[in-house]
Amino acid sequence: MKDKILKIAQKAKAASRKLSNISTKIKNNSLMAMADLLEERTDFIVEANSKDIKYAKGKGLSPAMIDRLTLNAVRIKEMSKGLREIAALPDPVGEVVRMWRRPNGLQIGKIRTPLGVIGIIYESRPNVTADAASLCIKSGNAVILRGGSEAINSNIAIAKVLSEAGSSNGLPDNSIQLIDVTEREAIFEMLKLNAYIDLIIPRGGHSLIRTVVENSTIPVIKHDKGLCHVYIDSEADLEMGKKVAFNAKVQRPGVCNAMETLLVHKDVAGSFLPSMIKKFKDANVEIRGCQRTKAIVSDIKDATADDWDTEYLDLILSVKVVDSIDDAIEHITRHGSMLSEAVVTKNYNNAWKFLREVDAASVFVNASTRFTDGGQFGLGAEMGISTQKLHCRGPMGLEELTSTKYIVFGDGQVRE
Amino acid sequence: MKDKILKIAQKAKAASRKLSNISTKIKNNSLMAMADLLEERTDFIVEANSKDIKYAKGKGLSPAMIDRLTLNAVRIKEMSKGLREIAALPDPVGEVVRMWRRPNGLQIGKIRTPLGVIGIIYESRPNVTADAASLCIKSGNAVILRGGSEAINSNIAIAKVLSEAGSSNGLPDNSIQLIDVTEREAIFEMLKLNAYIDLIIPRGGHSLIRTVVENSTIPVIKHDKGLCHVYIDSEADLEMGKKVAFNAKVQRPGVCNAMETLLVHKDVAGSFLPSMIKKFKDANVEIRGCQRTKAIVSDIKDATADDWDTEYLDLILSVKVVDSIDDAIEHITRHGSMLSEAVVTKNYNNAWKFLREVDAASVFVNASTRFTDGGQFGLGAEMGISTQKLHCRGPMGLEELTSTKYIVFGDGQVRE
Repeated sequence: MKDKILKIAQKAKAASRKLSNISTKIKNNSLMAMADLLEERTDFIVEANSKDIKYAKGKGLSPAMIDRLTLNAVRIKEMSKGLREIAALPDPVGEVVRMWRRPNGLQIGKIRTPLGVIGIIYESRPNVTADAASLCIKSGNAVILRGGSEAINSNIAIAKVLSEAGSSNGLPDNSIQLIDVTEREAIFEMLKLNAYIDLIIPRGGHSLIRTVVENSTIPVIKHDKGLCHVYIDSEADLEMGKKVAFNAKVQRPGVCNAMETLLVHKDVAGSFLPSMIKKFKDANVEIRGCQRTKAIVSDIKDATADDWDTEYLDLILSVKVVDSIDDAIEHITRHGSMLSEAVVTKNYNNAWKFLREVDAASVFVNASTRFTDGGQFGLGAEMGISTQKLHCRGPMGLEELTSTKYIVFGDGQVRE
Repeated sequence: MKDKILKIAQKAKAASRKLSNISTKIKNNSLMAMADLLEERTDFIVEANSKDIKYAKGKGLSPAMIDRLTLNAVRIKEMSKGLREIAALPDPVGEVVRMWRRPNGLQIGKIRTPLGVIGIIYESRPNVTADAASLCIKSGNAVILRGGSEAINSNIAIAKVLSEAGSSNGLPDNSIQLIDVTEREAIFEMLKLNAYIDLIIPRGGHSLIRTVVENSTIPVIKHDKGLCHVYIDSEADLEMGKKVAFNAKVQRPGVCNAMETLLVHKDVAGSFLPSMIKKFKDANVEIRGCQRTKAIVSDIKDATADDWDTEYLDLILSVKVVDSIDDAIEHITRHGSMLSEAVVTKNYNNAWKFLREVDAASVFVNASTRFTDGGQFGLGAEMGISTQKLHCRGPMGLEELTSTKYIVFGDGQVRE
C-alpha cells in the first residue's frame, strides 16, 4: 500500500511539470469535455453510487448522511455545471502580479505559477471529487484525491470519467488520480510525501483536520469550524440589526458562516431583544441567554459557559448583553473561530474599530456573516474557506491555488 | 520547561493582539530606540558575547564558527543600522491589496494584517536576534526567538536590550521574547503550540530545517539549501556568459544563491569552455567536468554522479555540456534546489522558455544568480529566502510576514 501511494505521488509530480506549462485552451477544453462526459455517463456513475448507498444503509448511516452521499441525474448535472463555470473563469497562471525596475536596470516581476501537486483529503460528498479536481486542473496543478471510504465507488467512477475526458483532450496522464485504498493508513502515508506533494487541503470534520495538521510534513491549508457572531452596537439601526441577525442565523443554520452567538449592547438590549427573540422563536430557533438577556426576555433557556464555545450548526442561538464594543470584541476574540464576524452600527468610529480589531478571515459592517463565500465574494468558485493565516485566509478561489516566482530580465548584470 | 515555553507562547499571543493595532509611529520609535540602546550597551553585549566565545573555544569550535559568533562594536553598529533601515521602510499593515464592489452593493476589500506570533529557530549568528525581531515588530507580529545554545549569552543580552527599548517606547510587554532554555526539547515543545504560534521560520542547516518540518504542527516557511545553475545557451553572448557565470560562482561562493553547476550548450562549448575554465582556474576554482567537457579541456577532474547533486558552497564547480535547452531545463529540474537559476541567451524564444519552464523561486535571463536577495530585489530587508511554494517563494521581506483579511462594507445586505 505504501508503495502504491508513493507511485501515485511520483506520477502526480511528473504530470504537474507538464501541466504547469499547458495552454489555457487545453485546460478549458478538458474541463468542458469532463462536464459533457459526466452527463453522458450518468448511468455508470449512479450505478457505482448505488453500491455506496447500499453499503451505507447496511451500516445504518443516518438519512442525512445517505442524502449527502446520493447522486442522481440532477446532482450530476450540477457537477457538470460547476465544471463549465470553472472553465469560464480567467486562468490565474501567468498573471504578473507586480513588476518593477531596479537602479541597475534589472526588471523584476512576480508571476503566478501553479503550486505543483495538491492532495485533497475529504469526507462523504462525492461531488467534491469533481469540484476539487477541476479547480486544481484550471490552476495548473496535478491533484491526488482521497475521499471517504463510504463514497469510494462513486469517487472511483467520477475520477475515471474525469481522467478519460482529460486524456482525450490533451491533459497529461495522471493529472487527476484517486487513491482507492480506503484504509486510514493511506492518509498517513500520503502526509509523509513532501518530496512530491506541495499542498494538502483537508475538507471535513474537526477530527480529520486535526489528524492532518498533526501528522503532515506537507504544508496544509485547513478549513476548520465556524463560530460566528453578530454584534448589535449601541448606535445600530435596530431594524437593520434584526434583518442581518435573522439572516445570519436562519437562512442556512448548518453551515460554517452562520451566526452562533448574538451580542447586544446594553443600551439597546431592552428595545432590541424582545422583538428580535420573538422573531427567532417564530422561526423555531431555540434561544439560550445570559442573565441580562433573561432579565429582558424571561422565557428562554440559560446559556451555560459551554454555549459561548459551541458551534451549533442548528436552529439554536446563544445571546449575550455586553457593556461596550470593547467587550464585544473581547468576547469574539476569546470565543470566536475568526471566520466571519459582523457589527451593525451607524457609528463611524465603531465600524472602523470593529473592522480593525476583529482578526477574522472576513469582518462585516452592516451585512450578514453568511456572505463569507467564494461565490458571494465574486471569486467564481471556491475550494473551501481557509481558517488559517498563512498563504491565504477566507474563501479560496483559483488564485489561492497558485504560488509565484520571480522572473528577472537583465542585460548582463552581475553583483558587485 | 514545558510549562515555561507554554507561558512564553501565551504571553506572545496576548502581546500580538495589542501589537496588531499599534501605530506605525510607536513601532518606528521603538525600532530607533532599540538601535540607539544597542550601541549604548555595546560593552554589556560584548561582555555577554565573550562568555559564548570562551565556551566555544573550550568546545574546540572552528575559527570560522567562532568568527560568526563574535560581536564587537563594529558588528553591533551594523545591527543598529539594520534596525534603522527597517524603521524607514513603509509599514505593510493596513495596506488594502485590492477592493471591489459586488452587484448587491457590498464593497469588499482585502487588507494586510500581521500574522500574529512568529517563532524563529536559528543557529549561531547572534545578529539574527536583532534582524528577525525588528522585522517581526515592524510587521506587527510578536516574536519568540530560539537561538542556538552556542550564542545563548549574546542572545539573552541582545533580547534584553531590545525589550527594554521597546517597553519604554510604547511597545506592548512580551512583544519580543527569547527562549533561554538551551535543551533541544525546547524546540519540540514550541512546535506543538499551534494554538498560540502562527508561523515558524527555521534558519540554519539542513538537519535543523528537517527536524522542524517533520515535527511542527505550526505552519513553517523554510529556507533550505541552494543548488543553482547557469546555462549558457547556443545563442549566448559568450563574453556576457563568462561575466555572469564567473560572478555567480566566485563573487561569494559560500552562499545559497552561488552557482554550483555550469551547463553549456554543445554548439558553443568548444569556443566558450577553454577561456571560461581558465578564468575559473585563475581564481582557484576547482573544476569537475563531464566527459564532453573533458574532451575540450583535459586537465580537470571527472564529475561523478554525486557532483550534480552537491551544494559545494566553496570554490568548486561542476560543468556539463548539454545537447539542448530542453536538456538543460531537465537537468535543472532533476538536480536543482529551485532557488536561483539563470540562462544567458540572445534568443527571445529560449529566454521565455527558460523563464516559463524553470520552476525556481527566481529565474534570470542574462544576469547572475547572486541577485536572489531581498536587498537586491528592493524589498529593503530580508527575513530569509523561502524555498517552498506556499505563502511566499524567494526573498521574504516585511510583506511576507503578513496575512490578509477581508473587510466588507454593507448597508444592510442579507443573503437570499
